Amino acid sequence: MLAIGVDIGGTKIAAGVVDDEGVILAQTRRDTDATDAHSVDRGVVDVCRELMADHEIGAIGLAAPGFVSSDRATVGFTPNLPWRDHDLRGEVAAALDTTVPIVVENDANAAGWAEFRFGVARDVEDMVTLTLGTGLGGAIVSGGVLLRGRWGVAAEIGHMRVVPDGHYCGCGQNGCWEQYVSGSALVRDAQAVAQTRPDRAQRLLELAGGKWRKISGHHVTAAAQEGDELAIGLLGTIGRWVGEGAASVAALLDPELFVVGGGLSAAGELVMAPAREAFAAHLSAAGYHPEARFAIAAMGNDAGIVGAGDLARR
Amino acid sequence: MLAIGVDIGGTKIAAGVVDDEGVILAQTRRDTDATDAHSVDRGVVDVCRELMADHEIGAIGLAAPGFVSSDRATVGFTPNLPWRDHDLRGEVAAALDTTVPIVVENDANAAGWAEFRFGVARDVEDMVTLTLGTGLGGAIVSGGVLLRGRWGVAAEIGHMRVVPDGHYCGCGQNGCWEQYVSGSALVRDAQAVAQTRPDRAQRLLELAGGKWRKISGHHVTAAAQEGDELAIGLLGTIGRWVGEGAASVAALLDPELFVVGGGLSAAGELVMAPAREAFAAHLSAAGYHPEARFAIAAMGNDAGIVGAGDLARR
Amino acid sequence: MLAIGVDIGGTKIAAGVVDDEGVILAQTRRDTDATDAHSVDRGVVDVCRELMADHEIGAIGLAAPGFVSSDRATVGFTPNLPWRDHDLRGEVAAALDTTVPIVVENDANAAGWAEFRFGVARDVEDMVTLTLGTGLGGAIVSGGVLLRGRWGVAAEIGHMRVVPDGHYCGCGQNGCWEQYVSGSALVRDAQAVAQTRPDRAQRLLELAGGKWRKISGHHVTAAAQEGDELAIGLLGTIGRWVGEGAASVAALLDPELFVVGGGLSAAGELVMAPAREAFAAHLSAAGYHPEARFAIAAMGNDAGIVGAGDLARR
Amino acid sequence: MLAIGVDIGGTKIAAGVVDDEGVILAQTRRDTDATDAHSVDRGVVDVCRELMADHEIGAIGLAAPGFVSSDRATVGFTPNLPWRDHDLRGEVAAALDTTVPIVVENDANAAGWAEFRFGVARDVEDMVTLTLGTGLGGAIVSGGVLLRGRWGVAAEIGHMRVVPDGHYCGCGQNGCWEQYVSGSALVRDAQAVAQTRPDRAQRLLELAGGKWRKISGHHVTAAAQEGDELAIGLLGTIGRWVGEGAASVAALLDPELFVVGGGLSAAGELVMAPAREAFAAHLSAAGYHPEARFAIAAMGNDAGIVGAGDLARR
Repeated sequence: MLAIGVDIGGTKIAAGVVDDEGVILAQTRRDTDATDAHSVDRGVVDVCRELMADHEIGAIGLAAPGFVSSDRATVGFTPNLPWRDHDLRGEVAAALDTTVPIVVENDANAAGWAEFRFGVARDVEDMVTLTLGTGLGGAIVSGGVLLRGRWGVAAEIGHMRVVPDGHYCGCGQNGCWEQYVSGSALVRDAQAVAQTRPDRAQRLLELAGGKWRKISGHHVTAAAQEGDELAIGLLGTIGRWVGEGAASVAALLDPELFVVGGGLSAAGELVMAPAREAFAAHLSAAGYHPEARFAIAAMGNDAGIVGAGDLARR
Repeated sequence: MLAIGVDIGGTKIAAGVVDDEGVILAQTRRDTDATDAHSVDRGVVDVCRELMADHEIGAIGLAAPGFVSSDRATVGFTPNLPWRDHDLRGEVAAALDTTVPIVVENDANAAGWAEFRFGVARDVEDMVTLTLGTGLGGAIVSGGVLLRGRWGVAAEIGHMRVVPDGHYCGCGQNGCWEQYVSGSALVRDAQAVAQTRPDRAQRLLELAGGKWRKISGHHVTAAAQEGDELAIGLLGTIGRWVGEGAASVAALLDPELFVVGGGLSAAGELVMAPAREAFAAHLSAAGYHPEARFAIAAMGNDAGIVGAGDLARR
Repeated sequence: MLAIGVDIGGTKIAAGVVDDEGVILAQTRRDTDATDAHSVDRGVVDVCRELMADHEIGAIGLAAPGFVSSDRATVGFTPNLPWRDHDLRGEVAAALDTTVPIVVENDANAAGWAEFRFGVARDVEDMVTLTLGTGLGGAIVSGGVLLRGRWGVAAEIGHMRVVPDGHYCGCGQNGCWEQYVSGSALVRDAQAVAQTRPDRAQRLLELAGGKWRKISGHHVTAAAQEGDELAIGLLGTIGRWVGEGAASVAALLDPELFVVGGGLSAAGELVMAPAREAFAAHLSAAGYHPEARFAIAAMGNDAGIVGAGDLARR
Repeated sequence: MLAIGVDIGGTKIAAGVVDDEGVILAQTRRDTDATDAHSVDRGVVDVCRELMADHEIGAIGLAAPGFVSSDRATVGFTPNLPWRDHDLRGEVAAALDTTVPIVVENDANAAGWAEFRFGVARDVEDMVTLTLGTGLGGAIVSGGVLLRGRWGVAAEIGHMRVVPDGHYCGCGQNGCWEQYVSGSALVRDAQAVAQTRPDRAQRLLELAGGKWRKISGHHVTAAAQEGDELAIGLLGTIGRWVGEGAASVAALLDPELFVVGGGLSAAGELVMAPAREAFAAHLSAAGYHPEARFAIAAMGNDAGIVGAGDLARR
């Protein structure tokens, strides 16, 4: 059965027709105005209509950022879109006037599901994805089942607390994991060093045109790949926190595989090696508990489309 | 279908015939020599034979402490019994010479399952049990399914790290949650105050016959129920850590209910009220994420028998 | 002997003639342009000339923010003024063309010294001041001697680390004490609650005209004095961290008195009571180590003038 | 002027005649029964009599473990001797029937003073000693003056808290620095790894005859010097905590030199190099605050005698 997967972002909507093997047969996109809820709804309807014109579609999956209700219909809260308790499924179903089943999924769950079904985790039944982007998103698959939780908001993995009274988090708490492992954390740490110890951050400052406020995650990765000591250390610290937090996750979930995705995964072994090392060093009962593997996500930017489409078929 | 549930402890084996409603129709027990693996195997076989003599049994569930393999056959490691990579299912099946299906389950998982099926969590689909005994054990049910993990050792919830470089833990790590919320933690904290600040611990010392090393968890609960300020504070600290850790668990699992069991649950609201308060204060995105409830376990000491029996039927 | 004390701030200079009893006999001030180093130097010279015209002056003390050299001549670094390795003593001495001894002191040290000599600490020999303003400044007097350290930058008390990997600090480190006890910390915490849990922050939001970004320390203190639960809790948390950090300071310095000053001291017992309680609970070897007292600073805004003048006489 | 220095330990008393250059001209010792207060007093009197027989003595300094009163007369509390509020000066003065001035000093202060006057710190005015033995003792000299504090118990440096809710400490608190940097901490960490991960601790286990409980600090240092990865890591962790804690000390005291002594200093650069690195990385306002040096103590086991004798002359 063919399904449509729609990945709804803050500035654009990407959609595709997904076959049973997770291959995208056709693709389209729309720019949207994130301040206008109707514009986003309209964009979703548009891409579906376009793809339904040429394909026999059996299901539609809509991947949205934020909190999606457990009945897979409503977006409760999302930081980057104007929706609050928005009946996305209802709106789209009414506009499309179709009996094709439509489901809404959290976008991190959709992307994780794509890795589980067709990506680097396709041979395992128990996995956790860690998406190191602006924040830390994730998805949990346990025994082959996507873990959704009572209110549909499981796998808010970036908000597990790793340091009591630690860094402030936008969620209102302190010490959340994403404050230690995200791209934002990397940039903040790099800028702090460059501001207070410019002597140690010469290469980063060069790459950023001499302005510490301009240092980006790409600069850090580039400098580290050249061998810059500070940049290697900064990415190593991110990796260490990935591994230490993952050891706590393993105590709860006992996954076989951690899939690391997001922009920071471009740093490759600069993050992955210290992550593995810290995981092994912090795994409880390590001699008796087999060590989960760590692998980099394989599905790239299409993961949301593929995962949303595939989840809609289930 | 009737099932036998066997709860294997360090010094005794308790077993019962469990019906479909979770009622125990008959019960028996054996003392065992925990230093002798054969003695324990024999005890398990004995109780099964006894109960099978009078009942038509469709399944047998064996609840064992420690790491149980994901195929529900083998005990990999257990702290209080002499088994290492022990094929418990095979041994028992051979001795009983039966075709009745036999499964091995982790005892905390079995007890948690009993709460989920027949106890305080019987009306929810997503729950986490927290058993505050010598350590902190637990079970996770998500979407009505017991979460086992890749190697059968999920829900080692007491070993989620809550304080980096925190208290030493017997598992080889530091800062594990069970070092902050277990009965052992309570006793240790109480004894530390009584030793270094006897003026603040007068009532606890009285109850313990004047010796700080004799202070037990029961003494703390008793003193707190009388209104002793120190004891109330000590239990409140345990409760606070229950709630703070549960907030991290909720970020991952989004349960509807936390079931608090084990010896420390006897302290009731002295632990539960601060647990709820701390949970609410530390829940990420609190305004948008409904708050899980906290309830005290209802199944008592039979939970292991009932849960093991019921899991064996599935 | 009469001395001039000059308190150099970011936007103004306040100066006075200080007698042997710490009384200010005459006072003057100048506004300054903090972006122009010469403007500040000129202002200092001006106020000295004005006060010297009418009084027989035996010493001049200049209190400056930031790092003052151990020879009491140079300002190495200051966050709010354009000086870097600035020979303030030399500049002022040359302009005044005087043989009166001139010394430069750190402003927090000067203010602390005023409390020690003439204020709430005048009867003790061992004290630490904690100035809870934008940051956390301080002064240490041990055995009646102001502690300056090798490079003149002792008593940077706000940068003792209290939480490894804790809140970011402008100094380039994490977890500095001032991130937990300053007025900035209070405002940040209050705004975070108001933003993410407006239901809990109704009174604070009312006082701030409905805008969480407008909540100030004064609003929190006012709300707490009315009995608002959140505000009381926020100040209590500040107080708790004051006491916990002070217990570490006491392990090193064994003072008799902690003098709490700065804007946050206006909250009085709302901060002081939890500070004392936390200090007592966290003092090492508490039964054997007498407990230091906590008192609110008594010298007010003149402390810098009085302390600078008095230190110049020594 | 010649002075007697007496170093009073748990099982023996060592004493010497100390000249103005810190040279020991004559030495003697007594074994003592630490369970008998009189035996210890008698031993102190004996060694003094013996040394006074042959030398013209101008002052006597008694170095005792534990809390010494600020009038340098009384031992308030000491963990290893039977004294409680014991007038050691009075007892000894009465028994010796002498007018020679006698003072009591804390033993860590005496040893630190010896380093300051005659040892590795003889050219600095501001130093802190860190004695990494069973616990973490220390002495603070600021501006050439030994810092005693209000009640004589300053420089209890091992009880500065470095981790909130961290490792239990015998002082009744949690997270004290000495739980992270002492010889006891090293042994505990090494044994924990050897118990839970024997595969990683093969060399340590060999050195300890196969028994993890027998692993000592010497084994760790020896293995590290052979290149054993685990041992190097364990000492590196100690060193890292030395440096991180020292950065907090520097924020308060701004010393020029940290003198590292005690049994663990035998590990040399295995501890010192990571200590220096961590100190530099964690020093607040690092670009503006010159970095204190770290050096290994030079006075060895005689430091207590020399320091006690020299302090008695002041």
